[in-house]
Amino acid sequence: MKKHSQTFPCFLLLSFVILFSSCQKQVDETSSTEIILEENQESTDPLPSWNDGKTKESIINFVTKATTEGHPDFIKKEDRIVTTDNDGTLWSEQPAYFQLFFALDRIHALASEHPEWKNKQPYKSVLENDMKTLMAQGEKGILEIVMASHAGISTDEFASIVKDWIATAQHPTKKKKYTELVFQPMLELINYLQANEFKTFIVSGGGIEFMRPWTEEVYNIPKDQVVGSSIKTKYEYKDGQPTITRLAEIDLIDDKEGKPVGINRYIGRKPVIAIGNSDGDLQMMHWAESNSIKNLQIYIHHTDSTREWAYDRESHIGTFDKALDEASQKGWALVDMAKDWKVIYPYELKD
Amino acid sequence: MKKHSQTFPCFLLLSFVILFSSCQKQVDETSSTEIILEENQESTDPLPSWNDGKTKESIINFVTKATTEGHPDFIKKEDRIVTTDNDGTLWSEQPAYFQLFFALDRIHALASEHPEWKNKQPYKSVLENDMKTLMAQGEKGILEIVMASHAGISTDEFASIVKDWIATAQHPTKKKKYTELVFQPMLELINYLQANEFKTFIVSGGGIEFMRPWTEEVYNIPKDQVVGSSIKTKYEYKDGQPTITRLAEIDLIDDKEGKPVGINRYIGRKPVIAIGNSDGDLQMMHWAESNSIKNLQIYIHHTDSTREWAYDRESHIGTFDKALDEASQKGWALVDMAKDWKVIYPYELKD
Repeated sequence: MKKHSQTFPCFLLLSFVILFSSCQKQVDETSSTEIILEENQESTDPLPSWNDGKTKESIINFVTKATTEGHPDFIKKEDRIVTTDNDGTLWSEQPAYFQLFFALDRIHALASEHPEWKNKQPYKSVLENDMKTLMAQGEKGILEIVMASHAGISTDEFASIVKDWIATAQHPTKKKKYTELVFQPMLELINYLQANEFKTFIVSGGGIEFMRPWTEEVYNIPKDQVVGSSIKTKYEYKDGQPTITRLAEIDLIDDKEGKPVGINRYIGRKPVIAIGNSDGDLQMMHWAESNSIKNLQIYIHHTDSTREWAYDRESHIGTFDKALDEASQKGWALVDMAKDWKVIYPYELKD
Repeated sequence: MKKHSQTFPCFLLLSFVILFSSCQKQVDETSSTEIILEENQESTDPLPSWNDGKTKESIINFVTKATTEGHPDFIKKEDRIVTTDNDGTLWSEQPAYFQLFFALDRIHALASEHPEWKNKQPYKSVLENDMKTLMAQGEKGILEIVMASHAGISTDEFASIVKDWIATAQHPTKKKKYTELVFQPMLELINYLQANEFKTFIVSGGGIEFMRPWTEEVYNIPKDQVVGSSIKTKYEYKDGQPTITRLAEIDLIDDKEGKPVGINRYIGRKPVIAIGNSDGDLQMMHWAESNSIKNLQIYIHHTDSTREWAYDRESHIGTFDKALDEASQKGWALVDMAKDWKVIYPYELKD
């Protein structure tokens, strides 16, 4: 795995993204008698890595009412749709979107097939690990890198490349696998919602085909419940074999206004719970808010410079500015990572 | 509801499409003891409207092996993906795709807002119920009708219009609601597959937002498991309200090569069971066939001129020619509607 420069200037990307962990796939199984079942339910904290307080309470209250038949806020199962962002919401996103690291590694891996890249921007700066020059080339340069690293191969090949990368690549500063940098409290939240028959969807600016090879294992979220940015594809027969080839052309940017569009395209229903961490999730929140069914907005605020990263209004990744004002003003659930979360990453549980 | 001309020449469409019935949402519930459970399972025919024979046997054999742990053809739950066409596979499609009738009715309904349509083709021929002239204008004319009837409004409005129409509109010759023209044996097959933990997806040339308002109730297939043709959309705030507006621009034609593309976009996995009725489903069959997991192709052959319609190689709707040869040659499950199905429509059960 190539080493990247340690100085990452903030940068805008088209956005793209991943995860792993000891994701619990089932709620605790209870014993056979009714009494023990009830006792267990009362005594088992569904969100053990969350500190008690207003945020945790608001989530548990919402779910309890939504699943209590006869309650005015009861929600029918088919309407229990949850949409959650990925980068900065389910896993970390600093110093840059993890999918960008994938793209950079892929350019290194492909370099031998493209000797001309040595002297051609934006590839030259990637191959020289010169992030500053790369970033100076702006969105156009990044887009070229993303396309060169993501397109031109079949969907099967791409899935296999992502799988191999995610299984081995290391985060430049945390020195952990990227899928170890998922948020333990969010894994618990997904698990809790699924146990209460909410259908959980990822709705991410990250690439849909970058996420699908690992979201099932890491988050217990099926491939068909992952919504993300996409490039166009083409079906063809290569040597008689049916193949879907990835084209170097944007299909959907699943960020900002693209999130409700993606939700409508893939889910066909407004969410009742929307979870995000940045201004890029605001339109998704509004879309959930426009649901005629009772709904909940949850915002993750990165406040922990020790265990994770602390950033909001000034950050060029996961900028949380306009949405921070609106979340405070409207009383949306605002997760203060430093205060609300006992641990950040699953490996802290094992320490 | 406007009456259409009774003479429908065959026509090509971009393809688009619906259903209703006494769709059983659950498998028969069994009594409490193990013995009764086993007896029930053995004695209950999961496909009661299917005549015994090679076709029924091949389906039940496939499902039984796929769900028997330890069997070499066992399929893990997450891989149990079923994709089924809609028009001509789950409901009838003659004398024309039902969604076209919706489009024509919609043009009539909108006519008062567009006085210029009276003298302007292709609208003029629609308003005069002159199908021959309409069809003579070819795909361009049909596309204009589809766009004028499907675009320019919000997704919420469109869903509500479809719901109202499907609840009341009548088929021109059968004199039944369109959702009564679903195939009872297919409802049983969907129910049987779902009971065996297959995830059932519609993959149709029909419009995704034309199908979603009713597929849940009629087929017990959730909105997010419906894949179809789509037009582009735009997220915006109208009077401060979040709105998704339908644009008059094609996004995906989910037919032929578009079917594997749609499957990859929405599901991210190859099917293990693919069901269709026309040459337009052939690429979907090949995509399923390229699955490394054991898979099954099912083709519905319209052979019943009395109870439904009989057509195949020469039909301009649901043309079944190249695929008929390939199905026979490869030994795919070929459903002979006249021979294999005891009843066609659910209402026959009540007669």
